[in-house]
Amino acid sequence: MENKKENFSEWYNEIIDLAKLSDKRYAIKGMNVWLPYGLKIMRLIDNIIRDNVDNKSFQEVSFPVLITRSQLETEFEHIKGFENEIYWVTKGGSEKLDIELALRPTSESAMYTMFPLWIRSHQDLPLKIYQIVSVYRYETKHTRSFIRVREIHFFEAHTAHVDYGDAERQMSEYMDIWSSIAEKLCLPYNIDMRPDWDKFPGAKYTLAFDTLMPSGRSLQIGTIHEYGENFARNYDIKYLDINGDLKYVSQTTFGLSERLLAAVIGIHGDDTGLILPASIAPVQAIIIPIPGKSFKEVLDYSGKILSMLKDINVRAEIDSRENYTPGYKYNDWEMRGVPLRIEIGSREMESSTVTVVSRLNKKRLNISIKEINNIKNMLNEHDKQLTLNAWKMMEENTVFIDDINNIPMNKDVLIKAYWCGSRECSDALEQKKDVTALGTLYNLNDSGKCIVCGNPGRLSMFARSY
Amino acid sequence: MENKKENFSEWYNEIIDLAKLSDKRYAIKGMNVWLPYGLKIMRLIDNIIRDNVDNKSFQEVSFPVLITRSQLETEFEHIKGFENEIYWVTKGGSEKLDIELALRPTSESAMYTMFPLWIRSHQDLPLKIYQIVSVYRYETKHTRSFIRVREIHFFEAHTAHVDYGDAERQMSEYMDIWSSIAEKLCLPYNIDMRPDWDKFPGAKYTLAFDTLMPSGRSLQIGTIHEYGENFARNYDIKYLDINGDLKYVSQTTFGLSERLLAAVIGIHGDDTGLILPASIAPVQAIIIPIPGKSFKEVLDYSGKILSMLKDINVRAEIDSRENYTPGYKYNDWEMRGVPLRIEIGSREMESSTVTVVSRLNKKRLNISIKEINNIKNMLNEHDKQLTLNAWKMMEENTVFIDDINNIPMNKDVLIKAYWCGSRECSDALEQKKDVTALGTLYNLNDSGKCIVCGNPGRLSMFARSY
Repeated sequence: MENKKENFSEWYNEIIDLAKLSDKRYAIKGMNVWLPYGLKIMRLIDNIIRDNVDNKSFQEVSFPVLITRSQLETEFEHIKGFENEIYWVTKGGSEKLDIELALRPTSESAMYTMFPLWIRSHQDLPLKIYQIVSVYRYETKHTRSFIRVREIHFFEAHTAHVDYGDAERQMSEYMDIWSSIAEKLCLPYNIDMRPDWDKFPGAKYTLAFDTLMPSGRSLQIGTIHEYGENFARNYDIKYLDINGDLKYVSQTTFGLSERLLAAVIGIHGDDTGLILPASIAPVQAIIIPIPGKSFKEVLDYSGKILSMLKDINVRAEIDSRENYTPGYKYNDWEMRGVPLRIEIGSREMESSTVTVVSRLNKKRLNISIKEINNIKNMLNEHDKQLTLNAWKMMEENTVFIDDINNIPMNKDVLIKAYWCGSRECSDALEQKKDVTALGTLYNLNDSGKCIVCGNPGRLSMFARSY
Repeated sequence: MENKKENFSEWYNEIIDLAKLSDKRYAIKGMNVWLPYGLKIMRLIDNIIRDNVDNKSFQEVSFPVLITRSQLETEFEHIKGFENEIYWVTKGGSEKLDIELALRPTSESAMYTMFPLWIRSHQDLPLKIYQIVSVYRYETKHTRSFIRVREIHFFEAHTAHVDYGDAERQMSEYMDIWSSIAEKLCLPYNIDMRPDWDKFPGAKYTLAFDTLMPSGRSLQIGTIHEYGENFARNYDIKYLDINGDLKYVSQTTFGLSERLLAAVIGIHGDDTGLILPASIAPVQAIIIPIPGKSFKEVLDYSGKILSMLKDINVRAEIDSRENYTPGYKYNDWEMRGVPLRIEIGSREMESSTVTVVSRLNKKRLNISIKEINNIKNMLNEHDKQLTLNAWKMMEENTVFIDDINNIPMNKDVLIKAYWCGSRECSDALEQKKDVTALGTLYNLNDSGKCIVCGNPGRLSMFARSY
């Protein structure tokens, strides 16, 4: 296998092939086939997202994939942000369609043409919905599995509120939801307030959750947007307030995608393959029966362990493939990132124990089946350690600089510096080294002199991005 | 509400609106918005399907929605079956695409261009995969929610086998899977071997699962197809057999769609609204606290009942909406088809009981909380009774005739008659009354004289179809 540190990009492609996550040999470049193992992991990620938004009274819906040109064109500047990336359906059978239909690049225009039918009075607010669907971008840049594709597995939440204050409270709720999701996936991140020229088309402002890949390049893995009344005024989404006055709603959105999986693969894996957080591992513990004397009994005993694990809600399986050595199986499941391996031979059977091997630190532990509950703790411990490692990796690759001449030129890192927020100063940094402004750090309030012009600035992040 | 018996079609549309299953006011006719309650029911149906195929070693995948024209055109007669119904993407941004891309009408051509990459030897067989996705038809006929739409929620299983015999065994396995799914949904059906002119394009033969709607019209709710080597020869899907010889695989497919939901709505509902099988009811038991003395204690007691029900895996909820009378709530949940209503007032609290009311027969039963497990039995009983009613309704609306002059002319029914299988004789029946041949009954072997020409025939079904 490729060396992750030295050839991250090659390593990333190789592990996706080896672990059979997706197949990019499909006839259309950038449209990949989700293979069973990759799809299972993504579904577990989806379920974490669902649990977290369902908890906050969001309701799941599913809108059509096609959007008419006139629905889209209601969107003032919004459509401009996408118009070069839209796939257009222009024919049905051999007939030319009267009106061209877009494959959704995102669903504002699909949803907001329905909102006026659903929202009449303040009693209908807040409206909080989401969907998990595919969105489409006619991507001309270089594609890369799970990072830049033309058919994107996408989560989008949309809300409408009585006023801007309530929409702002929604933005805070998104932060809580996000922090819970990121924690489950063991992912480190910064919250960057995107510069105005890089915010979502139509938004008042955009906050992005950015992580760092081992290549030193930044990866946007989530965004939340405050729309204020921008969309409501264009789609005429009004409600009767408590005094009987007609008012525009304020709106927000929250978007996530299969990039979460890209981050999990890239950040946690090692030179042996994937390392999955237990929270999203389709198999959390793989049981490997070791051939030898009394093998039939060993198999029975393994079956007993399996059902004990299932009883305590551990996703476990037995690898009972014939014609494969235990060694082959160890490597195979390590490569697929399973957090714990459970070896069971005649010695374990006779002593009523199991031998548990950690994917992360390779430590072996012989535990009594009376303590089988400990497997749960070991899975939690696995996730904790992954989280620590991941944050550490990001911190180690973040460099604070107070002098533009101190930019590390020989490798990609996350650069932290005071910045006045102007385009000119970020362009100056980009000229010095190929980095762009991710934005000012949202959760910090300290200030200092802009590293370029010396005017008052805020702590901000710069990096090469995917 | 509309009278279901007299105005089935109006009743059907009305209940979909009232129960908020889907919204058909979207800008594109026949592309509807899945609303939260409808989507929840469909997801529960999907999970029943998943459980049943996962059990039989199928693996879930997800293929791109777009298919190139050349992938499709490999398909000999297959493409002809769809060519008037395909939505074509011809532009990306403002550029004309080099090659036109189809929105999948079904996924043979998407999958079978990948199969040669996945199948090398007999050890890769059988290959058994499925996906649950949307498929698209540029439908020119009158659309109807869940029955005939342009964006269809679809399940498709695809298999490849070493030979025809193994593919035939797969067809039998599909029968078992189907019968288990239909049982869970409490749906009656016949298995009809479609006439040659009505089989799936490219198939050797098609077996359809047909049910009967209360309108007297037949509804196809599932199909399985034997492809033999038809597709393998066109897509060049070969494997090395145990002797090292290259051979074509044999293939089959199994398709289901949101029509399962249409059948559930149409067949089980009544003049009060939906009646959902407990197996797919998002809420199986709704708890309604009755205001009165000690209401706070009644609410606490209701909470206790809720957690007892959750402990025995009953999907239960408390309707704690203020400003609504119990009577309003009873009607609301009846309309939404919840199998059991649990009324809790101070009397129930003081006697440590609950009052359970059946949606199906309105019977009230006061049971002790010590017997709360009985709720599970009552849910099973509900599904049993729904199944009996549904099969009875289909039987009562099936008429066996041995004389073409005895066709009931004034209402739509399912007609059972001996038939030689020829197009001429089915056309003769169609001329007499607007019915088409659904096919010969698959699971029967008795024979008799064709009702039209008098030649040897098999027992067959005729009806107006959706």
